Amino acid sequence: MVIESNPHHVVIIGGGFGGLNAAKTLKNTPVKVTLIDRRNLHLFQPLLYQVATGGLSPGDIAAPLRAVFRGSKNIQIFMAEVVAIDKKNKKILTHQKTIDYDSLIVSTGSINHYFGHDEWRPYAPGLKSIEDALDIRRRILTAFESAELTDDESLRRELLTFVIVGGGPTGVELAGTVGEITRYTIRKEYKSFDPGSARILLVEGMNRVLPAFPEDLSQACEKMLNDLGVAVMTDTLVTNISGHEVSLLKNKQETKIKTQCVLWAAGIKASPLGKIIAGDNDKMLDRSGRVIVEPDASVPGHRDIFVIGDLAHYRYRDGQPLPGLAPVAMQQGNYVARLILARLENKSIKPFRYFDKGTLATIGRSRAVGIVWKIKFKGFIAWFLWLTIHLRYVTGHQNRILVLIQWAWNYFTWARSARVITNVYEHAPSDYVKNK
Amino acid sequence: MVIESNPHHVVIIGGGFGGLNAAKTLKNTPVKVTLIDRRNLHLFQPLLYQVATGGLSPGDIAAPLRAVFRGSKNIQIFMAEVVAIDKKNKKILTHQKTIDYDSLIVSTGSINHYFGHDEWRPYAPGLKSIEDALDIRRRILTAFESAELTDDESLRRELLTFVIVGGGPTGVELAGTVGEITRYTIRKEYKSFDPGSARILLVEGMNRVLPAFPEDLSQACEKMLNDLGVAVMTDTLVTNISGHEVSLLKNKQETKIKTQCVLWAAGIKASPLGKIIAGDNDKMLDRSGRVIVEPDASVPGHRDIFVIGDLAHYRYRDGQPLPGLAPVAMQQGNYVARLILARLENKSIKPFRYFDKGTLATIGRSRAVGIVWKIKFKGFIAWFLWLTIHLRYVTGHQNRILVLIQWAWNYFTWARSARVITNVYEHAPSDYVKNK
Repeated sequence: MVIESNPHHVVIIGGGFGGLNAAKTLKNTPVKVTLIDRRNLHLFQPLLYQVATGGLSPGDIAAPLRAVFRGSKNIQIFMAEVVAIDKKNKKILTHQKTIDYDSLIVSTGSINHYFGHDEWRPYAPGLKSIEDALDIRRRILTAFESAELTDDESLRRELLTFVIVGGGPTGVELAGTVGEITRYTIRKEYKSFDPGSARILLVEGMNRVLPAFPEDLSQACEKMLNDLGVAVMTDTLVTNISGHEVSLLKNKQETKIKTQCVLWAAGIKASPLGKIIAGDNDKMLDRSGRVIVEPDASVPGHRDIFVIGDLAHYRYRDGQPLPGLAPVAMQQGNYVARLILARLENKSIKPFRYFDKGTLATIGRSRAVGIVWKIKFKGFIAWFLWLTIHLRYVTGHQNRILVLIQWAWNYFTWARSARVITNVYEHAPSDYVKNK
Repeated sequence: MVIESNPHHVVIIGGGFGGLNAAKTLKNTPVKVTLIDRRNLHLFQPLLYQVATGGLSPGDIAAPLRAVFRGSKNIQIFMAEVVAIDKKNKKILTHQKTIDYDSLIVSTGSINHYFGHDEWRPYAPGLKSIEDALDIRRRILTAFESAELTDDESLRRELLTFVIVGGGPTGVELAGTVGEITRYTIRKEYKSFDPGSARILLVEGMNRVLPAFPEDLSQACEKMLNDLGVAVMTDTLVTNISGHEVSLLKNKQETKIKTQCVLWAAGIKASPLGKIIAGDNDKMLDRSGRVIVEPDASVPGHRDIFVIGDLAHYRYRDGQPLPGLAPVAMQQGNYVARLILARLENKSIKPFRYFDKGTLATIGRSRAVGIVWKIKFKGFIAWFLWLTIHLRYVTGHQNRILVLIQWAWNYFTWARSARVITNVYEHAPSDYVKNK
């Protein structure tokens, strides 16, 4: 038992982009750091859709937190789940341990949100965790396997219909990749049907895909999706999802589409840590459950608690909250760490400033759209930029090499070889077992 | 609906080493082939322990069957589970489909066996499937994470005790790798304890590890295990396994060892397909449930049904059954395929001859023992031979590159980066949640 010693103790909850960058900035400084995460790894979420579609293995986009901070004497890591925060006594409660803090950085991100329809969750997995990605991979691949086995044409049609809900970057990436797989990768691998005949629908509630992008890029994106066999339905709302059917509403007209594979990319909300921080004070949170923070990312009334990344509602210069993007979280993590260090020296630093390098959305092999350094890009150049930037930010040198090799391999062979399906018999769709 | 056409129809059940090689030999021949497997992949089982210990990702040692046979017009693949074989009418029954056969090759391997103690299964996973490997990986890694969290020294001792049951090649590989991890890989990654203090026990019922190897190699192996911190207990039987304790019996003395991580490498038995083939006729099976086959690998009384690999009891020249090794299954798969082709041309071929190239067991980095081309090897040379041979046989060019890079990386950095833990909160050990 060592008695709590002198150094200022910074506790970081969440090892995502925000927390990881805060810890990196505090590495080998005079503060003591405790990094708490439910997982033992930092996940490179922007490539999670490639795990879901069999292009990469989970290990390729996950860096063990302990390996990242192996040489750092001032950083301790706990794999634990935070269940309460005692703001008054400055304590973090986990199931196993109570931890005192001097400064607290909370960066636990967001979770899937079904807008009051949690009953859709089992039929329409989102894409936030490795388990989600493997679940989606299993659903896509077993759909083709079941289609090969059945002699019932209408069931095969149902199995070969994929509905992706949500036309933001994640929905576009998923739909585009499913299109690429059916049109190219597995085209010659089945004897009972042509995978190219698969029906892929991308459903978006607004009037265009990628609503956060300029309109001409949305149009370019829709064209690229169409080229990959994806049908885009805009101004369309989902009214019901079951294991066999999805109901869509457009112009007050309801359509029912038979499908066993619905993927959810329509909504996220703040992680439950927001509510733990707010306690009884609902006014601390916005509609999505994000904590509304001060210009220095601290929680109003608690200058030693910082909330960053997707969990934070950070009102920026234009009056809008900053978007839930990795660069925002990374820059905030770095900023808050520097702020804590400055405070210890009784110095002040300038308010947080977000440096927007741009955003890119990829649609499939050689296809992407986006804005980088305020210039619009589309097609191959956008895709190449996307590839370079993502490779640059994947954590871990070995991961970077593994991702590069698999991308190069997949590019030249059109293959996707990370097609392991796990727990298939525990999750067999009802027809897979009962049919015939 | 196409009516069954003329070509001779070979159905292969199981896409392991035996089935895969039979199908490869029958590729682009005049026969029609249907390959049935519960999975969509061929698993390179000899490297499964590296997935269990975080050195490789599942995708690295799994080749999608459809990708392997992409160019093969005469091979259809079904992902399905066989529930019955109608030998009289020559039909295979799966949940989804009934399939007629002219010749049948069954190569479904073996499963974990607890010698009448199935109640041990939840506490002591074996190493046969990808799920098994990920389960073992989760247990090993969460043990260290829980040890970092607890302040209870006796609980930490329990968490840092690993018991591997069975001193054959799999048990030796697992114990050696756990030793390597604790002594090198993660040595500097924890603040509450020294991973090098972990206790690793390898328990073997016979009087030496690797009982199938020459005695001097067993001794060399035990020495190498000791160097990695593994304590070897021979002549020792396991009498009970619970979630917190394992009971051992040596010289009529019972010892109880507190541990939450027991790994099972002590026994396998034939896959349930053996019983399906035998039906009421128990005499067709040996004690392990293997089908006793004729010199041409056919089932007595059914010259069109062949059983190969781990599922077969093939009595060889010395009167002993051939061992359950990948080379045996591969050579039998090739033999049976050639036999079927020869029969169609009314030709005969020589009886099956097993070409024994040797066996190697690896103990950890730079350490292995074995016999190759009848010469004994130990130490670095044996390890290098093991590495070269395994790399040679990994299926798929991309997998070979990925495995090579990760091995090279791990060798030079001592790292193991495939440390993704999945489903951790669904499988938390009781103490992990309840302690403190």
